[in-house]
Amino acid sequence: MSFTYDIEVPADVPESAKATYIKNYEMITHASGKLMLFAGDQKVEHLNSDFYGEDIHEDDADPEHLFRIASQGKIGVFATQLGLIARYGRDYSDIPYLVKLNSKTNLVKTKQKDPYSPQLYTVGQVAKFREISGLDIAAVGYTIYLGSEYEDKMLAEAANIIFEAHIHGLIVVLWIYPRGKAVADEKDPHLIAGAAGVAATIGADFVKVNAPKKEGFNSAEILKEATVAAGRTKVVCAGGSSTSAEDFLKQLYDQIHTGGASGNATGRNIHQKSLEEAVRMCNAISAITIDNADVEAALKIYNGN
Amino acid sequence: MSFTYDIEVPADVPESAKATYIKNYEMITHASGKLMLFAGDQKVEHLNSDFYGEDIHEDDADPEHLFRIASQGKIGVFATQLGLIARYGRDYSDIPYLVKLNSKTNLVKTKQKDPYSPQLYTVGQVAKFREISGLDIAAVGYTIYLGSEYEDKMLAEAANIIFEAHIHGLIVVLWIYPRGKAVADEKDPHLIAGAAGVAATIGADFVKVNAPKKEGFNSAEILKEATVAAGRTKVVCAGGSSTSAEDFLKQLYDQIHTGGASGNATGRNIHQKSLEEAVRMCNAISAITIDNADVEAALKIYNGN
Amino acid sequence: MSFTYDIEVPADVPESAKATYIKNYEMITHASGKLMLFAGDQKVEHLNSDFYGEDIHEDDADPEHLFRIASQGKIGVFATQLGLIARYGRDYSDIPYLVKLNSKTNLVKTKQKDPYSPQLYTVGQVAKFREISGLDIAAVGYTIYLGSEYEDKMLAEAANIIFEAHIHGLIVVLWIYPRGKAVADEKDPHLIAGAAGVAATIGADFVKVNAPKKEGFNSAEILKEATVAAGRTKVVCAGGSSTSAEDFLKQLYDQIHTGGASGNATGRNIHQKSLEEAVRMCNAISAITIDNADVEAALKIYNGN
Amino acid sequence: MSFTYDIEVPADVPESAKATYIKNYEMITHASGKLMLFAGDQKVEHLNSDFYGEDIHEDDADPEHLFRIASQGKIGVFATQLGLIARYGRDYSDIPYLVKLNSKTNLVKTKQKDPYSPQLYTVGQVAKFREISGLDIAAVGYTIYLGSEYEDKMLAEAANIIFEAHIHGLIVVLWIYPRGKAVADEKDPHLIAGAAGVAATIGADFVKVNAPKKEGFNSAEILKEATVAAGRTKVVCAGGSSTSAEDFLKQLYDQIHTGGASGNATGRNIHQKSLEEAVRMCNAISAITIDNADVEAALKIYNGN
Amino acid sequence: MSFTYDIEVPADVPESAKATYIKNYEMITHASGKLMLFAGDQKVEHLNSDFYGEDIHEDDADPEHLFRIASQGKIGVFATQLGLIARYGRDYSDIPYLVKLNSKTNLVKTKQKDPYSPQLYTVGQVAKFREISGLDIAAVGYTIYLGSEYEDKMLAEAANIIFEAHIHGLIVVLWIYPRGKAVADEKDPHLIAGAAGVAATIGADFVKVNAPKKEGFNSAEILKEATVAAGRTKVVCAGGSSTSAEDFLKQLYDQIHTGGASGNATGRNIHQKSLEEAVRMCNAISAITIDNADVEAALKIYNGN
Repeated sequence: MSFTYDIEVPADVPESAKATYIKNYEMITHASGKLMLFAGDQKVEHLNSDFYGEDIHEDDADPEHLFRIASQGKIGVFATQLGLIARYGRDYSDIPYLVKLNSKTNLVKTKQKDPYSPQLYTVGQVAKFREISGLDIAAVGYTIYLGSEYEDKMLAEAANIIFEAHIHGLIVVLWIYPRGKAVADEKDPHLIAGAAGVAATIGADFVKVNAPKKEGFNSAEILKEATVAAGRTKVVCAGGSSTSAEDFLKQLYDQIHTGGASGNATGRNIHQKSLEEAVRMCNAISAITIDNADVEAALKIYNGN
Repeated sequence: MSFTYDIEVPADVPESAKATYIKNYEMITHASGKLMLFAGDQKVEHLNSDFYGEDIHEDDADPEHLFRIASQGKIGVFATQLGLIARYGRDYSDIPYLVKLNSKTNLVKTKQKDPYSPQLYTVGQVAKFREISGLDIAAVGYTIYLGSEYEDKMLAEAANIIFEAHIHGLIVVLWIYPRGKAVADEKDPHLIAGAAGVAATIGADFVKVNAPKKEGFNSAEILKEATVAAGRTKVVCAGGSSTSAEDFLKQLYDQIHTGGASGNATGRNIHQKSLEEAVRMCNAISAITIDNADVEAALKIYNGN
Repeated sequence: MSFTYDIEVPADVPESAKATYIKNYEMITHASGKLMLFAGDQKVEHLNSDFYGEDIHEDDADPEHLFRIASQGKIGVFATQLGLIARYGRDYSDIPYLVKLNSKTNLVKTKQKDPYSPQLYTVGQVAKFREISGLDIAAVGYTIYLGSEYEDKMLAEAANIIFEAHIHGLIVVLWIYPRGKAVADEKDPHLIAGAAGVAATIGADFVKVNAPKKEGFNSAEILKEATVAAGRTKVVCAGGSSTSAEDFLKQLYDQIHTGGASGNATGRNIHQKSLEEAVRMCNAISAITIDNADVEAALKIYNGN
Repeated sequence: MSFTYDIEVPADVPESAKATYIKNYEMITHASGKLMLFAGDQKVEHLNSDFYGEDIHEDDADPEHLFRIASQGKIGVFATQLGLIARYGRDYSDIPYLVKLNSKTNLVKTKQKDPYSPQLYTVGQVAKFREISGLDIAAVGYTIYLGSEYEDKMLAEAANIIFEAHIHGLIVVLWIYPRGKAVADEKDPHLIAGAAGVAATIGADFVKVNAPKKEGFNSAEILKEATVAAGRTKVVCAGGSSTSAEDFLKQLYDQIHTGGASGNATGRNIHQKSLEEAVRMCNAISAITIDNADVEAALKIYNGN
Repeated sequence: MSFTYDIEVPADVPESAKATYIKNYEMITHASGKLMLFAGDQKVEHLNSDFYGEDIHEDDADPEHLFRIASQGKIGVFATQLGLIARYGRDYSDIPYLVKLNSKTNLVKTKQKDPYSPQLYTVGQVAKFREISGLDIAAVGYTIYLGSEYEDKMLAEAANIIFEAHIHGLIVVLWIYPRGKAVADEKDPHLIAGAAGVAATIGADFVKVNAPKKEGFNSAEILKEATVAAGRTKVVCAGGSSTSAEDFLKQLYDQIHTGGASGNATGRNIHQKSLEEAVRMCNAISAITIDNADVEAALKIYNGN
């Protein structure tokens, strides 16, 4: 595999971990510098609502569905909790994994208590797991709710995780969502840009933000403020609740080519489909993200042509 | 003892602990993959109310009753707190034990404060206890109140416990109950399925959930969503407050054969009886759970025929 | 010294600490299995109100009074804080000590904030103190307010203390008092029995509870529920606020012979007297507790006959 | 230097630290057993209000003023924060220092939140500082607000500090002030005596309390309850807000000779004066405290005769 | 480089770290004892508002702008978060860095919750980063909100940071701002002086305070109380929201020459300009701060003459 761009290994990666860092970076970006993150960590956040119900394919009820997709489709990295990886990883050892380090349910609403998603494992435990399991644990992830009354705990946990992850050559993806009683408009482009900037200050490799929304503005256009503010930390977006695959892929294309995004983090839009359709969706997304395809070419992949 | 199914040793069990993990798994499932958990941990949760009073046999007033049952009846594992095991274990060294790691009383109600059940021991202490005592400490247990304002602490403690327990070859059973001001319907099948899914994400070997209830639906039928959502994490149920042994055993049979449960966790329905009757009840439950008996056969055992 | 009963060394005491555990148990029970605990730990809990004022002998104003009593009277163990032991222990090295590990003042009332009594020292520090001082540090003690909003912290601290104390061969006495906004009747016999059961689950050697009270019932009779619920964990009681020595001793006799108690924990009823009378009181209490005397014989001792 | 009384080295001082403990005790009491503590730790507690303003000599604006006084006047020990000692200590290496381990400002009032003064350094850090600096770090100090809702944290920190300080041969002075929403009368003599007793239970060498006040009673007389309650822990008092040096010295004399105090802790009454007058004030206070002078003799010293 | 004044190495710097401390002090003060701190840590505190918007040069949108300025302009030290340094440091290895150790966003207002800015990294991690990266990590910084309900946590973290930083030969700059529900006037000169004094007590090398304001008084004049109160801890000021460069430089000159300040900490007034203008601004500020220039000379530099 040869790299199509220069990796800037951050200065907190020690000499002894540089090769691992570069290997992991290449692995999850397919040496493209772009990230197609398949998000399968919502079984805590959304409980069973993303996996079972009307308009959700029955394949999705079983957690193994996620592993089947990640194994058969083209993805960059599969993000989920350590426990699931431990249970299925031996049978899906071809998948590059991101261990999502914190999780919370959606039962307690912000009105009752500002959100805090607790760190479940130390980076040291993840490194130990990588060693024990022999799996491709390439990255770790963590969610910060900026503007929550518990922002302090999450900022501190995230900063430490990044520092320790780089010591171990692991790539770090932050999810940053402004949320809490103090946050009036979670999708405000200036606030999203601020969130992206925060990720940069604590040294994340990638930061996933929601696509900004502002009446009268094109979402991909107003995303630019964030991708510039993030500097060398790369921004990935979710596609949101697009109704059709075509709309989804077009939006993704614009986020990258207009907004300056470096990829995407997609969950429901993939795994709520049947295995076969989900795999085609992964491949279509990866075509745009990694292989620089246009929407038409990606749609053909999705449609199985 | 030969195994009737393949054990999937999770990938977070190190090579050095695999034999122990398999031995423990075989021991508490009688190599059947099904778990008959005798729950004797309620002396904190319910104080003396489960052990003394009207309709409770006087044998139950003395904690040794629990050990006598666990020793004479057929069970998979006896779950109780470390202190009791330390006090009686030398005289009942034939019992496979599960150390329940957290406990709280029921004095403070949810209306006053959302529930949090604190971790009382580290897994390292349990491993030390196993070594000191020479007892068959095969498993650890922990309760999470999902939807509590303290969910964060319990999720983090549980995830760490599972990781460390697997390092030591210990099996982990989670009890997950949705509870707190934010939880409107604790027995909602979709919520129970969500709870089972959470157990899977943090890698529990077994998860005990309450049997779901929904008007107009059969409980065993609607349990299926949970057993599917849990994936390779196995679901065990409580029988609830059945009035007769026959009803209890029928319910258990349905949970397993219709709902996909892998066993049961039973306390009061056993230990509130006299020693002799409790032992017969254990054997009847184990017949269904472990030996694949039907209700009629189990009832014969219970009735001493 | 030969033992009049079998000591059941709990299974969490390692081989290397068994001799120490047995020696300590023999020392504080005078090899009788019964405990006469002289409580001198109230200088925090009640500040100076137990030691100075009307109806309190002036001897009691000076903390050394406690040491003089413990040294000259017959007691099982003298319970007080580490700091006092450090300051007077060298001059009273004949006393067997229990280090009370947590303490709080009574200034903040339950109405303002539920009670929490913080752990002041680790068991490791106590073990180090035992080594440094060469004193007979035979036991540690800890108070749990069951039903407090801070019950979680105290349960966790207590469980850890017991585990670590047994590792070091130290005997553990818990004080468990139901207290907090959620507790309507602190002396309810069923609740007291629940408290005694909690002590058993975390493995205390002794648990001190308040004597239960219920209108129309004999206190010693209704104590039985607790002593049975505690199993092999032994129950000791306080005499409460008896007005005469005779009443006090009779109550103590009944607690042991009717209620099944294994001793007593007495403070004010001893130390608020002059040294000479306090010593006689200790000896009378010990006669009943340790030497199996009847009330008449004990009263003779108290009266100096 | 020969000692005029026996030092009772507490039993928590290990053999290896006894010589250091005795040396420090001798140093700060001038081998008199009495303590003249010069308090220079209020730059946090009172911010700049004790050092700058009307009726305060302009010398006091510069923190070096405190060091000049401590160096030129006769004192027992100079109490201040570690940071100031680190900054000036090399130029004032003749001063015996007490490191005040906790501090808070007075900005947040009790009505808003009960007081908690956080521990800023561990005793281990102080010991390391003693080694690095080569300075005479003879003692550590800590303030407890008894009756605060945060009393638990302060009691636990204080108890640990004393234990660890004695391990390192350091003398410990506690400041104990009843304060919080629950405290109606901070100067009540019975409460002050309780506070002194608390210091004894956790093993402080000295405890500084406020002089008690009760209408119709002489303050020195009612201080006796506290000095008796403290046992072998020695009580030192502040002089309060006396208007004249004569009144201040008389009060001090009475506290020692009537009230049983073992010294004083004085700040503002010294450092708000010019260097030259402050030095004379130190010497006058030390004459009474250490050299057993009467008020007349001390006044002569103060007046420079 | 030869030093124009004596460095007073504080007594908590161990022998082994003295050379490093002196080197760092010389480096960031250009051996002048005066500090020109370029503040680039606001991407958390103010999110993207300081970097993007009306009246802000578009160069400022990209975080690399800060590094370009710090590299091309004359500054003493560039203060920012560790993550940004890790990402850009290898390309800007000529810059002396200060790692800002704590940060918070401005989303939650004081009315909702008093401010607490959490420590993101330990000093040990910073020292490790210095070693791994080989960069000139010369200093660390930390912000305290004095008068916040969380003052206790910040005072404790700051005190520890200073102690540990000096162990590693790192210079410490504190930012101290009185802020919280309890603080009525954040710019009150007496309060600012108190804040400066607090920095001295915990041993900061430099403290950044806001320029005091009081109606009818000259800000530089009333700053004197603070610079005197801080003793050997040096005070640096922000220029506030001056509208013109001339006003800004004049104010800076007065703060140093009238108010006794030892430098400045400037962010927005530099980085919101284009790179070229920002560099001239740095040089002008440095001329006054480090090279003792007058306002006229500095203005010439700013104007590129």
